[in-house]
Amino acid sequence: MSKLSASEIKHIKALSGKKFRDESRSFIVEGEKMLSEALNSGFELLASYRTEDIGEAQMSRISSLSSPSPVLGILRMPDTSTVPEIQSKGLYLALDSVRDPGNLGTIIRICDWFGVDGIFASEDCVDQFNPKVVQASMGSIFRKSIVYTDLERLCRTFLNKGLPIYSTLLDGKDIYECELKPQGLILMGNESRGVSKSLRALCTDSLLIPSFAQGPHAESLNVAVATALTLSEFKRRDRYEK
Amino acid sequence: MSKLSASEIKHIKALSGKKFRDESRSFIVEGEKMLSEALNSGFELLASYRTEDIGEAQMSRISSLSSPSPVLGILRMPDTSTVPEIQSKGLYLALDSVRDPGNLGTIIRICDWFGVDGIFASEDCVDQFNPKVVQASMGSIFRKSIVYTDLERLCRTFLNKGLPIYSTLLDGKDIYECELKPQGLILMGNESRGVSKSLRALCTDSLLIPSFAQGPHAESLNVAVATALTLSEFKRRDRYEK
Repeated sequence: MSKLSASEIKHIKALSGKKFRDESRSFIVEGEKMLSEALNSGFELLASYRTEDIGEAQMSRISSLSSPSPVLGILRMPDTSTVPEIQSKGLYLALDSVRDPGNLGTIIRICDWFGVDGIFASEDCVDQFNPKVVQASMGSIFRKSIVYTDLERLCRTFLNKGLPIYSTLLDGKDIYECELKPQGLILMGNESRGVSKSLRALCTDSLLIPSFAQGPHAESLNVAVATALTLSEFKRRDRYEK
Repeated sequence: MSKLSASEIKHIKALSGKKFRDESRSFIVEGEKMLSEALNSGFELLASYRTEDIGEAQMSRISSLSSPSPVLGILRMPDTSTVPEIQSKGLYLALDSVRDPGNLGTIIRICDWFGVDGIFASEDCVDQFNPKVVQASMGSIFRKSIVYTDLERLCRTFLNKGLPIYSTLLDGKDIYECELKPQGLILMGNESRGVSKSLRALCTDSLLIPSFAQGPHAESLNVAVATALTLSEFKRRDRYEK
């Protein structure tokens, strides 16, 4: 077995932090399937480590999973700093201060499923190359990357093009009853505080996912679940009720 | 400060395991809001510990959270062993081998939001009183508890009453286009394997949540997300398209 040196292990473990990922322009992906999806999507493999080569003890030191996969790869981080040209027929998602890595990864997977044309996030959202985000995305991160940007400026771009900005709020209009355009920006907010006030002021439409419970019920839905329900209703209307 | 004894700490920590929870018929809930929801829902408080009384060091020893809340309570476990009478107008959910505590907690919260009439789970699903499930349910566990039971027998009960059993499968019929009855049982499967073969054979209808992506996309959706999309479509039809 070819052992990893202490400095190699230190380097790999440091990739669990955003600062070192950004400096080294690289990030970790674990698992055979995830790695092959990355390569199929054109990501560049910088290094890979297999349990059969390095042994279980070393793999569990470098893995961020509680049950390590047989392979861990280090990939070159793509450049995601440029805000793309907004297409007037596109449907986009913007995330305001989403903090939980599991939620962000699940949202990327949802956007991949629903064919969202672009994902944006405020600078204080969790990093898309956080190992937990990468794993929760189940490979969707290799098809849908996030552009971190100033959301107020982004919203003004949509408004200047005459495109609607939707947010989901507990005092919004019933999503199943109000008009939805197939294009524009959907804004989803922080896990506990929702969309920030300054952004709410820029929204053209606020939507509510109604509860169907009789009597006391959950106060809200998880942000990933709310994102899925919102996107599904936009896409369903566009495809089946034109 | 009134310190906890070593045996008290051991007792509380043991509640993170199902075996000791079942033996002691008790489980843990953390956080002021969760605890007050539990008491409002009639759960019996057996003990509670506050950081102001026991200190941060002891709280972090007994807490299962990475950032402990200021209060941890121990509640009496309700009796959830009896399969309720199935109402012919009810909409029920059954979970086959759902293993991830975050998924199960999120599903309970979704069922609470959509007013599902009952939740069932196979015996090999993660335990509803697992601390991570309780936390992810965000208090919904106090309004919607799960009955763990043999799902094949449960399905036969539905069939004998002439009620439909729906499952979501990747080769099912488009959920947005096919007929949905407002009552019956919806079956959701394991995170990687889906619904088991023996149960699939008992389903009357298999549904597909279509992807709206053009080109390569995610292979599937997270089970909690799929549950939300399915329930939402059943409830939307029932309320808005009657």
